Amino acid sequence: MTQTPLSVALLGCGTVGTAVAGAIVSRAALYEKRIGRPLELAGIAVRDAAKPRDLGVVSRDVLTQDPSALIDGADIVIEVMGGIEPAQSLIEQALRAGKPVVTANKQLIAAAGPHLHAIAAEHGVTLDYEAAVVAAVPIVRVVRDALAGDRITSISGIVNGSTNYVLDMVARHGMGFAEAVEQAGALGYLEADPSEDLEGIDAAAKIVILARLAWGVDVAMSDVKRRGISHLSDADFEAAAGAGHVIKLLASAWASGDPDNPNIELAVRPVSLGADNPLAQTREGRNEVVIEAEFAGSLRMHGAGAGGPETASAVLGDMVNAARSISE
Amino acid sequence: MTQTPLSVALLGCGTVGTAVAGAIVSRAALYEKRIGRPLELAGIAVRDAAKPRDLGVVSRDVLTQDPSALIDGADIVIEVMGGIEPAQSLIEQALRAGKPVVTANKQLIAAAGPHLHAIAAEHGVTLDYEAAVVAAVPIVRVVRDALAGDRITSISGIVNGSTNYVLDMVARHGMGFAEAVEQAGALGYLEADPSEDLEGIDAAAKIVILARLAWGVDVAMSDVKRRGISHLSDADFEAAAGAGHVIKLLASAWASGDPDNPNIELAVRPVSLGADNPLAQTREGRNEVVIEAEFAGSLRMHGAGAGGPETASAVLGDMVNAARSISE
Repeated sequence: MTQTPLSVALLGCGTVGTAVAGAIVSRAALYEKRIGRPLELAGIAVRDAAKPRDLGVVSRDVLTQDPSALIDGADIVIEVMGGIEPAQSLIEQALRAGKPVVTANKQLIAAAGPHLHAIAAEHGVTLDYEAAVVAAVPIVRVVRDALAGDRITSISGIVNGSTNYVLDMVARHGMGFAEAVEQAGALGYLEADPSEDLEGIDAAAKIVILARLAWGVDVAMSDVKRRGISHLSDADFEAAAGAGHVIKLLASAWASGDPDNPNIELAVRPVSLGADNPLAQTREGRNEVVIEAEFAGSLRMHGAGAGGPETASAVLGDMVNAARSISE
Repeated sequence: MTQTPLSVALLGCGTVGTAVAGAIVSRAALYEKRIGRPLELAGIAVRDAAKPRDLGVVSRDVLTQDPSALIDGADIVIEVMGGIEPAQSLIEQALRAGKPVVTANKQLIAAAGPHLHAIAAEHGVTLDYEAAVVAAVPIVRVVRDALAGDRITSISGIVNGSTNYVLDMVARHGMGFAEAVEQAGALGYLEADPSEDLEGIDAAAKIVILARLAWGVDVAMSDVKRRGISHLSDADFEAAAGAGHVIKLLASAWASGDPDNPNIELAVRPVSLGADNPLAQTREGRNEVVIEAEFAGSLRMHGAGAGGPETASAVLGDMVNAARSISE
């Protein structure tokens, strides 16, 4: 077994990128043992290499403003910049050069996943994005790999932590809805554009990605029947509470008709759930997804749907698996 | 892409084997699409091919009493016979012939997993056993693959459905402990030797397998501090209920000390849990496992821990992944 290090290009250095870079350095011995070959951080591409930032154990020398050159010299590319461009062009450059790509970019995968998968297949490399859907909860791997021999009939769950935080503050702490939204914003739980969360756009992107993996269908954001929570009022919450119910924002996909060629429906909408429903008990920013499959029955997964280290956990898992498949 | 079918040898035809065989036949179109190549059932090895059995859509012509010849002619081998021999010798034959193996055999993997992995590695083939631990709940894949970039600090959960059924009957339905054990036996929920379940031996085998995957350590059944539920009395259950608690049989593994070379402890024992603990709410024969990792935080997985189709779901998932890696 060769001992040449595998070099990793990291594109982006926000909270997720910083956690990923720190782990590549501080867990070097662990990753070498798991991969059978050492990993090295070739560099981190940022917009402004001079900007002050706390990189912890990572040397500032790895910062570069030339992502394209960084990709050229690397074996594996990790994209955690977010947004469509320049992320998409850089990922395409990597895939066309035969380099496996790991990304946390939900927006890009929802918009261009099938296109990027076609390029990856053409060049015989992997494209992974566990972190793009519900951060540390390994839902992509379960839908794509663990249930690869089964027929999924539905996927439904709480996949947006920010709105769940708001709904939980109202339901469990009796906070007014407007006040809860304001508090979530002040705590930094809402996206820069809060309509991404409140109108269910973030949740819609996640259910689109999961539906493609579950059924191999080419669905898009426009296929999701979407209603967010911004139109809800205190009266709606009082009515639900009076019935012993809890309002949650659910993203759902379900199959009907011919199992070999099913019709897929997608929806994001607030649902009033009985208080003993496990989804109703999902607190604060946590996420929970329920998958139903013909043979497996009902599977529930619960965990952190956001956060720097939590998202980095999923990115690093994909990275180690990509490295294992190269060094095999 | 070649269109020669990949042929699957199935060893064993109990409830799991029958479900696996039925799916290979009835889901042929789905699997061909997912693998990129057709799959065919080469045969099913049984002890007595003349015994009456309901094979559903599967032709009796595939039954054979010669597992060794069946393996010789196959591309992928699935073992669902259970027990140590002849399962171990047949799996070794397959691995040495360079054929990927999928097994549901918890007892064998707990006893001889590292030995079989060494043979698999030597011959460059995969050995998978998602079904051996908590049936349809994809815990093996999550511990081994999804968290491959993280550091797991503990794994703890309800991994034996039979004892959970007994404990749930007592806690929620007020049944006497002895009566609940008798009912579980009458319903076929207990192993032929009920001490496998009641003394925590089955749970110990599962936590041994998970600990090896999580930390790469060579632990054995004798490393598990094991106490079952058979010594519990109605007085114990009354005391727990009086305190608002629920008794559950937990299998746990946790790491301490140097994260790069941790000390691993393993235990199976009844634990009194607060009623609002999610593990306390695990009902009937369901299973639930909580994984804690440095970056991912707490992940919970919940689903069916036993059953023919549920176990077959995991076997078929491993089979499709093995077939994908052959046809790549």
